[in-house]
Amino acid sequence: MLKLYVTPATCSLASQIALEEGGAVYAVERIDFARQEQRSPDFLRVNPKGRVPALVTDRGVLTETPAILAFIGQSFPESIIGVPKDPFEFARIQSFNAYLCSTVHVAHAHKRRGSRWADDPAAIEAMTLKVASNMGDCFELIENTMFAGPWVMGETYSIADPYLFTLAGWLEGDGVDPARFPKVLEHRQRMADRPAVKAALAAVQG
Amino acid sequence: MLKLYVTPATCSLASQIALEEGGAVYAVERIDFARQEQRSPDFLRVNPKGRVPALVTDRGVLTETPAILAFIGQSFPESIIGVPKDPFEFARIQSFNAYLCSTVHVAHAHKRRGSRWADDPAAIEAMTLKVASNMGDCFELIENTMFAGPWVMGETYSIADPYLFTLAGWLEGDGVDPARFPKVLEHRQRMADRPAVKAALAAVQG
Ligand SMILES: N[C@@H](CCC(=O)N[C@@H](CS)C(=O)NCC(=O)O)C(=O)O
Ligand SMILES: N[C@@H](CCC(=O)N[C@@H](CS)C(=O)NCC(=O)O)C(=O)O
Repeated sequence: MLKLYVTPATCSLASQIALEEGGAVYAVERIDFARQEQRSPDFLRVNPKGRVPALVTDRGVLTETPAILAFIGQSFPESIIGVPKDPFEFARIQSFNAYLCSTVHVAHAHKRRGSRWADDPAAIEAMTLKVASNMGDCFELIENTMFAGPWVMGETYSIADPYLFTLAGWLEGDGVDPARFPKVLEHRQRMADRPAVKAALAAVQG
Repeated sequence: MLKLYVTPATCSLASQIALEEGGAVYAVERIDFARQEQRSPDFLRVNPKGRVPALVTDRGVLTETPAILAFIGQSFPESIIGVPKDPFEFARIQSFNAYLCSTVHVAHAHKRRGSRWADDPAAIEAMTLKVASNMGDCFELIENTMFAGPWVMGETYSIADPYLFTLAGWLEGDGVDPARFPKVLEHRQRMADRPAVKAALAAVQG
């Protein structure tokens, strides 16, 4: 059986929603950041990077949200989360997800995880000061140049939707008013009404 | 015809090598960072993010290295760069590439592009001080837990190989001795001998 390692209010929510949308049978294991469980020897044996999400399959462990999402999409091809076989359509989705992973998530991480990139406390503090404007810039680009609507890619729901929903949920905490991005905000509200999203949120809260 | 926007000594090299390995017919267009061409209105119409690589196809523009690499792999399925159809095997490759994109490339970018994440010059300077140790940690993880050998994924060459080659080429410039990572170093040397790599390097230097 699939097992997903998750932590509430982190990027692991995207993979969990995708599993729900695919109708997957899976177990959830919670990693408590307050207790630093992501750095425990047990968890480092699962994911040496010490991060969530990690998806345990019967063939091995997968990490990195865009890879896990594509795996779920290819594993449940008949479900709503199934990914297109056409290489270009698939690449458009992967491009969106890679941007979330490499740029948007990273912009956000400079708020609480600045110590990854500098040791000086003043530098870490300086990074937190730029998070709101960076996240604002990222979502402006998404709103104006990437988001097709009503779903991220247009008429068809895809693995990009749970991922955008997850990161858009961080806006208020990062000091950005989501009302600046009407399409993203409407998407977030519509996503929140989906049974798969409700089920994922209920499962992670345990 | 495909057209790839590139800049010498950047991550665009990975996509260019993949095109060469696939036997693609493509044009190269160079973007000069010294002249800030990545922020020119002309280029921003191609890629509103203002970054290389960008791959122009007859169906639209693709950005983000892992997405471009997967697109090339799926577009030239019979070539050495073709990607596996098996979802798990494919996900393992995408996981490796997502790590390069979201963590290793980002660790490197804190050397020259610190102004993305802070405005204070002292903070930007503090970030540069941590680049060598972060890049060292990333490559230690790659060497010890991810790299199967002789290619990244094992016996089969894949789209992970040009990407690792590209980022491993940044080690010396980031103050890291590549001799610490014998498998990665040997891989880098073997990659450098490939005709596709030589052709890509020659094409970008123009
Ligand atoms: N590139 C990874 C990033 C994973 C990641 O950074 N996860 C965060 C939670 S959103 C984490 O586990 N942080 C724990 C830590 O930094 O100690 C992905 O997209 O899955
Ligand atoms: N996540 C993107 C990152 C692309 C990126 O940052 N490219 C750099 C070169 S390695 C760039 O264009 N930098 C120009 C700038 O920051 O102005 C990818 O993997 O393709």
